[in-house]
Amino acid sequence: MNNEVIYLDNAATTKPYKEVVDIINKYLNEEFYNPSGVYRQSQNIKKLINESRENLANILNCSSKDIFFTSCGTESNNWVFKGLTEKYIKNKEKNHIIISSIEHHSILHCCEHLEKQGFEITKIKVDSNGFINLEDLKNNITEKTILVSIIFANNEIGVIQNIEEIGKICKEKGVLFHSDCVQAFGHLNIDVKKLNIDFLSVSGHKFGGPKGIGFLYCNNNNIKLENLIDGGGQEFNKRGGTENVSGILGMVKAAEISYNNLEKNTKYLTKLRDYCIEKILKEIPESYLNGDKINRLSNNINIRFSYIEGESLVLMLNKYNICCSTGSACSSNTLEPSHVLLAIGLKHEEAHGSLRITLNIDNTYEQIDYFIEKLKEIVSKLRQISPLK
Amino acid sequence: MNNEVIYLDNAATTKPYKEVVDIINKYLNEEFYNPSGVYRQSQNIKKLINESRENLANILNCSSKDIFFTSCGTESNNWVFKGLTEKYIKNKEKNHIIISSIEHHSILHCCEHLEKQGFEITKIKVDSNGFINLEDLKNNITEKTILVSIIFANNEIGVIQNIEEIGKICKEKGVLFHSDCVQAFGHLNIDVKKLNIDFLSVSGHKFGGPKGIGFLYCNNNNIKLENLIDGGGQEFNKRGGTENVSGILGMVKAAEISYNNLEKNTKYLTKLRDYCIEKILKEIPESYLNGDKINRLSNNINIRFSYIEGESLVLMLNKYNICCSTGSACSSNTLEPSHVLLAIGLKHEEAHGSLRITLNIDNTYEQIDYFIEKLKEIVSKLRQISPLK
Repeated sequence: MNNEVIYLDNAATTKPYKEVVDIINKYLNEEFYNPSGVYRQSQNIKKLINESRENLANILNCSSKDIFFTSCGTESNNWVFKGLTEKYIKNKEKNHIIISSIEHHSILHCCEHLEKQGFEITKIKVDSNGFINLEDLKNNITEKTILVSIIFANNEIGVIQNIEEIGKICKEKGVLFHSDCVQAFGHLNIDVKKLNIDFLSVSGHKFGGPKGIGFLYCNNNNIKLENLIDGGGQEFNKRGGTENVSGILGMVKAAEISYNNLEKNTKYLTKLRDYCIEKILKEIPESYLNGDKINRLSNNINIRFSYIEGESLVLMLNKYNICCSTGSACSSNTLEPSHVLLAIGLKHEEAHGSLRITLNIDNTYEQIDYFIEKLKEIVSKLRQISPLK
Repeated sequence: MNNEVIYLDNAATTKPYKEVVDIINKYLNEEFYNPSGVYRQSQNIKKLINESRENLANILNCSSKDIFFTSCGTESNNWVFKGLTEKYIKNKEKNHIIISSIEHHSILHCCEHLEKQGFEITKIKVDSNGFINLEDLKNNITEKTILVSIIFANNEIGVIQNIEEIGKICKEKGVLFHSDCVQAFGHLNIDVKKLNIDFLSVSGHKFGGPKGIGFLYCNNNNIKLENLIDGGGQEFNKRGGTENVSGILGMVKAAEISYNNLEKNTKYLTKLRDYCIEKILKEIPESYLNGDKINRLSNNINIRFSYIEGESLVLMLNKYNICCSTGSACSSNTLEPSHVLLAIGLKHEEAHGSLRITLNIDNTYEQIDYFIEKLKEIVSKLRQISPLK
C-alpha cells in the first residue's frame, strides 16, 4: 500500500468514471461546437443535450422541461433561494423560509443574504441521530412561508431525512419544497413525484461526473422562478451562458452509470461501511459513530474520537497517503466546529474530534484494514500527547 | 476539402488547444481532488489554482486577489449587474446604469431584469461603424449613475471600442466601469490599470479554453459587490461551489498560449481577414462589410449580401461542411434581426442578409478560397430565387 493513494473523501469529490472522461474528451476535441449554431454540427450537440435532459428526467420521474443545467449544486441552491424570493423583497406578508439546522453552507449563506433583505429564516432542529422533527416542521409553516428546504442526505454525517413525509407536509400546507440532493443524487433513488419535491439541486462531481456542472430540477408547472443568470436563449431562456457541453454529457453519463449500478453498489458499500464502522468502534476505545446508523448514505462514516483533534488525524493519516476529512470540504479550512455536529448535540471538543470517511466502489476491505491499522496507531499517539486527556 | 470541416465560427466557440485538453485530462484523472481538502493532494491543487490566478493577474496587470473564477462570461456579467445594484433596489437617488446599444444579450437581459426592479437604463447609440459616441456617454452620466458597461469588442461585428477614453471619462466622472471582454480577452492586450477598468468579464471557451468556465476581474479595493452565488469559502468567500479545477487550469493554459502568441497570431489573422474581406467584396456584387474596417478583432468578418437571407447562406454553406453564423450564437435561433446590425443603421432586410465569419489560426488561405468559391455560387443561386430582388 506504500505508494497507493487511499481515497476516502468521496463526499468532497469523486474521481470521474473512465467513460465520463472519454465523453469529455470527445466533446472537447472532435465535437467542440456551440449548440446554438444553426449548422448540422451544432444541432447534433443540441440534440444530445436534450437527450441527456431526458435521461435525467427518467431517473427523477419528471419532465425533461423541468431540468435546467447549472454550474454546480451551489448555483442551483442559490437560484432557488434568490429566484423565488426576489418578488417578495420588502413584502412583510410573504417573507418566511424554513430550513434545517444541518443544511450545506450554500443554503446557510443564502439565508444570511436573505435575512439582510428582510426575510425571516426558521431553522428546524435535528435530534441526536440527525433527523428533523416533523411536528416542528409542521408547526412552523405559516401563511408567510414561501419555501421549505431540507437537505436530502447530509454531507457530513450522511443522514437521510424522511423526505417523503416532509414532502407530504409541504403539500398539505401548500408550501414549496426544495431539497439539496447534492450528496443524495447518484446514491439514492429519487422520485420527485412520489416525494412531492418542487425543487432539487444536484452537483455532477459527487457521483463520478466532472466538477463545474450541476442541475436544478424545478417543477415549473406551478412556479415562477426569476433567473439567477440572465443571458441568451439557453436552458429555455432560464439560465444564460454557452452550455458546458462536455460537462453536461459527462455528468449525465455518470448519472446513468450510477443508477444502472445503484443496487449492486449500495449493497457493496453498505457492507464495507458497516465493516469499517464496527471495526473502528471495536478496536479504538472511546470512539463513537456520529449520526444514525441505519438511515445514512451507504458510503458515509463519521466517527468521533475523544481527546483529539480531527484535523491532526487527517494530516497524520495523509502521511500514509490516506485522504479523508473532518467535515465538509467547503468549510474544512475554517477553525469553526462543524455546525452539523453541534446540531446533533455534540460539544465543541467532540465536534473537533470527528473524522469523516466517505467511500466509493473502488475501495477495498484491504484498504479499510490498512486505514484502520494506521488510524489506531495515530489515535493512540495523539491521545498520549493530548492535553484533553 | 471534401470531408474536412471548415470551421469559421470562432466567435461562437473555439476548439480547445491540445495542451488545454491534456491538462483537463490530468485534473480529471490523476489529480481529481477537491482543493478544499486539508491533505497534501488537495493543497497541491489549491496552490495551482492560485498560481493560475497570478498568471491571469499578470496578463491583466492587476492583483491576483481581484480575479474570481466563475462558470462563464454570462455569469460574470450577471454578477456585476446584480451584485452591484442589490443595495440600490428601490433607491431613487442611485438607480441609473449606462450601456451601449450593442451589448451582449446577457447584459441586455440583466438590464431588463433590473428595469423591472426600478432601475433606469440608458443605451448609448453607436455610429454606422459601430462606435459609441463619447460625448453622448459623458453627457448621460449623472449623480444617479451606478455603472457604465461597454463591450470591449463586439461579438457580431468585432468592433473594438475606444476603451481607454471611456475609462478616462468614467474615472473623471467618478462612476464604475465594467467591460464585457468575452470576445476581446485572449485576442487583445488588456491592461486594466491603464484602461481604468473596474470590472471585466471573460469566458474560457472563446480563446481555446473549455466551456463552462470564465472569470470576473473586480477591482475590489474600492467596491462592495454582493455575491451572486453564496456558498462555501471558495474564491475568497465571494463565489461558492467546488472549484472547476480542470476548467480553471485549462482556461488559464489557453490564456497563456493566447498571450504568448498574440502578436504572431494577430498578424496572421489580420492578413487572412483582410484577404477574405477584400476577395468577397470584389468577387460578390452588392456585398458590404458591417462594422469598422480597421478597429475590429483580427478574426472577425461580418458581411451583408443584398436580397438574401443569412440563415439560408449558413445552411447551404454547411452542405459543404463550412460552419459560420448569421449573428451571435446566443440569439441565432431567434427570428429577430440582430440588434447590433440594426444599431449600426442597417434595415431589417440588410441585417437578415448578413453573415459572420470568425477565423482562427488553423484556418488557411486555401480554406478561405474554397469558402468564397462556394459562397459565390450560393449567393448567386439564392439571388436567382429571391423575392427581394
